[in-house]
Amino acid sequence: MKITLSQLSFHTGNFEGNTQKIIDAIHTAKLNGTDLIVFSELATCGYPARDFLEFKDFIAQAEASIDTIAKHCVGIAAIVGSPRTNPIIEGKDLFNSAYFLEEGKVKQVTDKTLLPNYDIFDEYRYFEPNKSFQVIAFKEFKIALTICEDLWNLNDNPMYITTPLDELIKQNPDFIINIAASPFSKTQIAERRNTLQGNAKKYQLPLFYVNHIGAQTHLIFDGGSSVISSNGEVFSELAYFKEDEKSFEIQKENQLIIQALDENNALKLDRNKYQDIEDALVLGIRQYFQKLGFTKAILGLSGGIDSALVSYLAEKALGKENIWAVLLPSQFSSQHSIDDSIALVNNLGIKHSIIPIENTYQSFMSTLEPFFAGTSFGLSEENLQSRSRGVILMGLANKFGYILLNTSNKSELAVGYGTLYGDMCGGISVIGDLYKTEIFELCVYINREKEIIPNNILTKEPSAELRPDQKDSDSLPPYETLDQILHFYIEDRLGPSQIEAKGFERALVQKILKMVNMNEWKRWQAPPVLRVSKKAFGPGRRVPISGKYLY
Amino acid sequence: MKITLSQLSFHTGNFEGNTQKIIDAIHTAKLNGTDLIVFSELATCGYPARDFLEFKDFIAQAEASIDTIAKHCVGIAAIVGSPRTNPIIEGKDLFNSAYFLEEGKVKQVTDKTLLPNYDIFDEYRYFEPNKSFQVIAFKEFKIALTICEDLWNLNDNPMYITTPLDELIKQNPDFIINIAASPFSKTQIAERRNTLQGNAKKYQLPLFYVNHIGAQTHLIFDGGSSVISSNGEVFSELAYFKEDEKSFEIQKENQLIIQALDENNALKLDRNKYQDIEDALVLGIRQYFQKLGFTKAILGLSGGIDSALVSYLAEKALGKENIWAVLLPSQFSSQHSIDDSIALVNNLGIKHSIIPIENTYQSFMSTLEPFFAGTSFGLSEENLQSRSRGVILMGLANKFGYILLNTSNKSELAVGYGTLYGDMCGGISVIGDLYKTEIFELCVYINREKEIIPNNILTKEPSAELRPDQKDSDSLPPYETLDQILHFYIEDRLGPSQIEAKGFERALVQKILKMVNMNEWKRWQAPPVLRVSKKAFGPGRRVPISGKYLY
Repeated sequence: MKITLSQLSFHTGNFEGNTQKIIDAIHTAKLNGTDLIVFSELATCGYPARDFLEFKDFIAQAEASIDTIAKHCVGIAAIVGSPRTNPIIEGKDLFNSAYFLEEGKVKQVTDKTLLPNYDIFDEYRYFEPNKSFQVIAFKEFKIALTICEDLWNLNDNPMYITTPLDELIKQNPDFIINIAASPFSKTQIAERRNTLQGNAKKYQLPLFYVNHIGAQTHLIFDGGSSVISSNGEVFSELAYFKEDEKSFEIQKENQLIIQALDENNALKLDRNKYQDIEDALVLGIRQYFQKLGFTKAILGLSGGIDSALVSYLAEKALGKENIWAVLLPSQFSSQHSIDDSIALVNNLGIKHSIIPIENTYQSFMSTLEPFFAGTSFGLSEENLQSRSRGVILMGLANKFGYILLNTSNKSELAVGYGTLYGDMCGGISVIGDLYKTEIFELCVYINREKEIIPNNILTKEPSAELRPDQKDSDSLPPYETLDQILHFYIEDRLGPSQIEAKGFERALVQKILKMVNMNEWKRWQAPPVLRVSKKAFGPGRRVPISGKYLY
Repeated sequence: MKITLSQLSFHTGNFEGNTQKIIDAIHTAKLNGTDLIVFSELATCGYPARDFLEFKDFIAQAEASIDTIAKHCVGIAAIVGSPRTNPIIEGKDLFNSAYFLEEGKVKQVTDKTLLPNYDIFDEYRYFEPNKSFQVIAFKEFKIALTICEDLWNLNDNPMYITTPLDELIKQNPDFIINIAASPFSKTQIAERRNTLQGNAKKYQLPLFYVNHIGAQTHLIFDGGSSVISSNGEVFSELAYFKEDEKSFEIQKENQLIIQALDENNALKLDRNKYQDIEDALVLGIRQYFQKLGFTKAILGLSGGIDSALVSYLAEKALGKENIWAVLLPSQFSSQHSIDDSIALVNNLGIKHSIIPIENTYQSFMSTLEPFFAGTSFGLSEENLQSRSRGVILMGLANKFGYILLNTSNKSELAVGYGTLYGDMCGGISVIGDLYKTEIFELCVYINREKEIIPNNILTKEPSAELRPDQKDSDSLPPYETLDQILHFYIEDRLGPSQIEAKGFERALVQKILKMVNMNEWKRWQAPPVLRVSKKAFGPGRRVPISGKYLY
């Protein structure tokens, strides 16, 4: 039997486009002699469809897509992920299902058992968990069909009381198929492989895995679909960060024999963390713009490392002709900020403009003079500069059809070291899930062959340049220290005494954690952050604003 | 036996404060001869604690609170809601529990069975559902103890496959206790009563119900704890929108006899929808400020109805000495906008300032002149005016320690008729869950005895005044029509053909739904919206930005 894994990019809610893409892949695969083609989780409607799933109209369109696709499954079978109406009155109204389509119709349906409901996942919001288990008989094979999270219950502290393959294995399946929508994070590729390998090894069965590829607002799906041998070794892997397809011949003799049918089946399992992050962010930017129907990005260049990195990534994603870098110097801006920015735009070949904010800032100051008189220069004046920049950038974006890229980093988002409605503006936050130290490391990686991001930007001391001779280190500990504490708190969710036990001063830990919690109100209004860690700011991290924990 | 229902306001994460409040209530009740005092759901940690629940340190503090409280339960028993570590390795790490405390220790624990995971609820994110049922024996009574959602599975399309009281009833309980954190909406009081009455009637048992009171960022808990007789009639109700406590004597003869022990037990079941909404919003503002440690609010007064209503509510919540109303007229502002605003601030007795935006707007225009030259006045220029206002208001707020109140209404938030980083600024959106037509109705109600909101504000045609002679109706259908379509789409989640079937033109429905969906990116960055409907913008409504559904 010939099986084809089809790793495609879908657009949430675009039933016409998604359905056509699936049908085209089925036709091509059929011409190539494929017996069974496998698509990813919730392929018809895209993932995550979020509250669109609560519209009967939306579900009706998904179910109509399945009917349409089924008609094309003649002489070929397909597995397609799609939501399904729960026929039982008790329980949630939907299942997250994998349709097995054959002979022009729905032959069998498998519903998802384990519904992730942590971090960015909300599946229990919509779906009823499956409670019955049945392998799929196709040709001489019995297939244990599972959906994404169904494989993720193997660790020491399992989140679910049921493990689907423990049930399915009783029916002696020949191999496992898993269709998934597993988003990227910088630790996810290793963890995912580990999980897939763990399942193959535990059940001594080969595993065919098809993941989503593409970006949906803040989430980036990296693909990396794969075939794992029954001994737990990776047999084949599809591309990361792009659409791909691979076919395999399966034969049942004493044991199952799998043969790769594509010429290029050389395994390259080594990953470079920085290349993966770069590829993920480029994909995230590109699809955000594509899916919203935009082509052009504008951003403010400060002369610092954050906006330099975002310029580089945006150029990669959208092309140099589509990036507009704007320098917005003030009286506090240093000459090197301008020089370094010019060097950067020259290296990238992108358009730039210089728009001093002196006049607008002074206009705010004179407008507010009757009230501010007698007060000293402080945070309010700093914010006025930042907000002058935000308004100018948004003015240009609105006038000429650009999306403003936000350049906040995770360290500053965490401690509130940024101005709401100022430098926190933007349609999407590109590097808001990278700590400052990671940004330095990524820039060094980007410069590995030639100086793309001017070295001076990497070596000078970070400064917001909102008052004379300001340095980030005036009010923050060194980023090496800050980022470690933040990582323990945000990613690892350790409490103050646990972090202190890692070797940090109590007062410093308390100060940092308090800063994080008391700035929750700012992050509520931050743009969507492209997620590249296991815990990004945004829908994956839900914290009360008016709480009193740790501050 | 004397039972006391204690309806208190808790502060998320403030274990010290919450614990002390509970202990004080226990001591007072004991002095009054109470045998059993009942507190609301998750009382120790506050509701909703959201992702703070993922911190072991947070849970340890909740468990320590229970230990502390238990020591005070000598000669009196208490039921206290608190999270509990799941002792079983499989499944989620926590239960949402009701502790039964007696003789200085934890005598029994009941875990929540039905975990709401829709709208603003995320309980399955944290908690494992209970699967075993045991009544609590106390004195001569058997108590069926349940937690909030446990009672909410009686409708025609039940969301859960288990109904806890169907299990507990087998053990012949004498009455039901339910501890809850049930947030307010304008339809919730009736629905909640209906649900409580339905349970009492179905199981033929009296029901003692204790709800949260207080506001947590966007959520308002209205209290309204109650006692329902076994025939389904409301026997007694505690106050709405404030802390309250009531005691009852229960005697077991042929049937259970309940006697109200407070003097003021006259039932006033009639509710006024507008008074409830007003009380809810006032409580929402007040506690948002209190819990963040702020006292003073600033807002922009446009001369329109939205900012007028917010001024009125803010004055009620914070006191006239704490409100600063700022008029920010432009060249497009009409004289009546200024006159009406002045009349309003005089009626309310609040401070006002007039700060023309002409200079800052012109400064942006001249700064952008090299780019804007040759283009015609449009949305970009409108936004510059709105953003000039936002920056000035935020400047004053930052300088003098005010929180800026957002004045967006639900109709304009829905269709994107507002400027991000302009009039969408603010720490909290006060009326963002009220459609424009509801705002008119509420203002008429507020003016029922005397003219508080100047009549001219209620009668003139709505206008953003961002260009000459602009009216909202230039680009939007009449609010009566718009709001109906929006309600069908947002609250009722009807699709386009279902809404069309309600009697609206297809083209209009498509236009409105498209406007809603294509403005999702703006709402992502909107402030928290005080929730008064069953579907507010914010965490209760999760919609993709880069989707392609209905646009």
